[in-house]
Amino acid sequence: MPLDPQRFLGDLHKLRCFGASGVGKGVVRQAYSNADIAARKWLAERFKDAGLEPYLDPLGNLFGLAGENSLLVGSHSDSQPEGGWLDGALGVIAGLEIARAAKEAGGPPISCVSFQDEEGRFGVLTGSDVWSGKLALEEADGFADDHGNTLANMRSTMADLASDFLPHDRFSGFLEMHIEQGPYLEETGLGIGVVTDIVGIRDMRISFEGRQNHAGTTPMHLRRDVFQALSDFNTALNSRFANVVTPATVWTIGHVALHPNASSIVPGRVEFSLQWRDADADRLARMEAIIRETVQEIAAGHGVAAQLGPVTGIEPAAMDARFQAELAAAAEALAPGKWQKMPSGALHDAANLATVMPAGMLFVPSIGGISHAFDEDTGEADLVLGLQVLNRAACALAG
Amino acid sequence: MPLDPQRFLGDLHKLRCFGASGVGKGVVRQAYSNADIAARKWLAERFKDAGLEPYLDPLGNLFGLAGENSLLVGSHSDSQPEGGWLDGALGVIAGLEIARAAKEAGGPPISCVSFQDEEGRFGVLTGSDVWSGKLALEEADGFADDHGNTLANMRSTMADLASDFLPHDRFSGFLEMHIEQGPYLEETGLGIGVVTDIVGIRDMRISFEGRQNHAGTTPMHLRRDVFQALSDFNTALNSRFANVVTPATVWTIGHVALHPNASSIVPGRVEFSLQWRDADADRLARMEAIIRETVQEIAAGHGVAAQLGPVTGIEPAAMDARFQAELAAAAEALAPGKWQKMPSGALHDAANLATVMPAGMLFVPSIGGISHAFDEDTGEADLVLGLQVLNRAACALAG
Repeated sequence: MPLDPQRFLGDLHKLRCFGASGVGKGVVRQAYSNADIAARKWLAERFKDAGLEPYLDPLGNLFGLAGENSLLVGSHSDSQPEGGWLDGALGVIAGLEIARAAKEAGGPPISCVSFQDEEGRFGVLTGSDVWSGKLALEEADGFADDHGNTLANMRSTMADLASDFLPHDRFSGFLEMHIEQGPYLEETGLGIGVVTDIVGIRDMRISFEGRQNHAGTTPMHLRRDVFQALSDFNTALNSRFANVVTPATVWTIGHVALHPNASSIVPGRVEFSLQWRDADADRLARMEAIIRETVQEIAAGHGVAAQLGPVTGIEPAAMDARFQAELAAAAEALAPGKWQKMPSGALHDAANLATVMPAGMLFVPSIGGISHAFDEDTGEADLVLGLQVLNRAACALAG
Repeated sequence: MPLDPQRFLGDLHKLRCFGASGVGKGVVRQAYSNADIAARKWLAERFKDAGLEPYLDPLGNLFGLAGENSLLVGSHSDSQPEGGWLDGALGVIAGLEIARAAKEAGGPPISCVSFQDEEGRFGVLTGSDVWSGKLALEEADGFADDHGNTLANMRSTMADLASDFLPHDRFSGFLEMHIEQGPYLEETGLGIGVVTDIVGIRDMRISFEGRQNHAGTTPMHLRRDVFQALSDFNTALNSRFANVVTPATVWTIGHVALHPNASSIVPGRVEFSLQWRDADADRLARMEAIIRETVQEIAAGHGVAAQLGPVTGIEPAAMDARFQAELAAAAEALAPGKWQKMPSGALHDAANLATVMPAGMLFVPSIGGISHAFDEDTGEADLVLGLQVLNRAACALAG
């Protein structure tokens, strides 16, 4: 049987019932949450129904296996704390439909995968980081989320279902379909983006330790106020980055934990996240040097102690030339003139997979460029076009 | 029997067992926590043993009543989320010892009080705000802490023990002993501060609503990042205040709640506290005008929406001249040349009591000026000297 767009859309809508936020189509399905585990069990059933062998590895990556030396197609089904319904789910269900259709049509062997914790509840791309060998399982086990839960604890809840890690050479390559998560395709009226490379990302936790004290009796000039230190650090960093970055470079302070966080106390400790992304590894390193230097200067100026956590992240990754060519050919055949090659500003499992097998990636438009939010969405015609382009390339690459 | 310093110190150390932090002498005893309720029940027993009538009002203010028209001596026994062992507890146990000794000696009628929620888990000085008539009970009932618990809910847990509010004219005046919570007395080698007036305070909650989005695919120039808005607001406010404030003016951003607070998401909402204090009501108003103006300008500049919560707080309050004179005379008699008149940079229940009866206040030194922290402390000789000065003034005023 050929590809079934309605079955594909139906499964996509079913998956968003797991952790449905009740706000638009949004989902709350963080890695290892009850909703995430229930979704993976539901996916395993879909794999079985499609004649694929459900296979869970120790980290929680869920495969639907076809025969030996198959092409792997998928993404991730975990979400941000407040996530959209598509994000990684789109690539997983596209992989399911393509593998299922190939099986039904007696086509080439195509397997499907949903990686675990792509959204970085514990690390950055924890599931594919560990499977690709970039991160040791023992080290990942020590990672904790913002509430102090360790990955070791969370993954133990599914240990009874897990088998060993799969060898990479079981697969001939990896294809991932994803929403763009940015405004480019929509603004330029294109339906498909063929990804050339994925930007590198760096994550760091920084903390300042000052002097917690009474907010009424401590004169301003005697304070060691960590919120003031954080604010001045942010201001200084923005101006120092200006000489180094390009319009495509981004950096974000998205997490701030102030302590004790009471209105009448001068805050004595703050921990915050700093994330920066660029396609050029040298620029990422120059930015890290500026961050370290600025942290030390601001800390000294405010009389606070600074701690810099380890830098996690991933290198910029180029997509495989042959995979790019097949995706481009499929896009030109099905959407002539309506597609373009582009880099990915977002991080994806494909960046890890590219280090162990040929990998390719395809984007569909995001309405308003919105993602990692409940109102993330994409027109269903664009979703189906993406599925058809991905399927055409998959059959060519797996054949 | 005369004053018993050892009994006073013994009770002071017993009280810190309720909510003991396990770090130094620190306590975790927020208003209406289990530790706070247990401490109030223990205090009620001490009052009974001393021949004082335990009396709990609807808000949770606990009195130990002597005869009619008595002098009221006390402070509060609730603490900050991470509080010191003395803070308000010192004034409560001093009141207990003075009332107890007067009773034993057949002296003048002296009552004791521990006000509820002086530290502002719900409001600012919630217990004395309501009793003094500054704040309606119905309004206070709607106040919620940082976890969404309302005061109405919390006070209902002690409703079975509570009687009506006491009339103010049952008392001839109020005396409060407190640690300075600042560095002044220690630095100048003084043992006693006689408070002339208490600075005014203003509290406001401010929130920015921007656009939550992906931290990798949203170009910097398209972001509506509320952390950047908060940081720029803080910088602008500091420079604009410079022309208005005195060296004694203070302002603090002590509470920040970023949403969704994840490292790879541009934050879409932030709520933060702003508190400012000064002895001059006009200056407090000028600062509020600058805050409102700056919030609107920064919000417009960042394309975010701003919301300003109600301004709570208390007016600057002068202590009663006769009470100041008796405290000064007692200080000169017991610590000649070792005391000084001074304003209070910290807010105290005495500021509310001054609006309904004559009120006076006395400070003892804080080691390192540290308070609202686990390592807050004062030498025991200074604690006992403070008790003796307060007792001498209390007997003169109650006689």
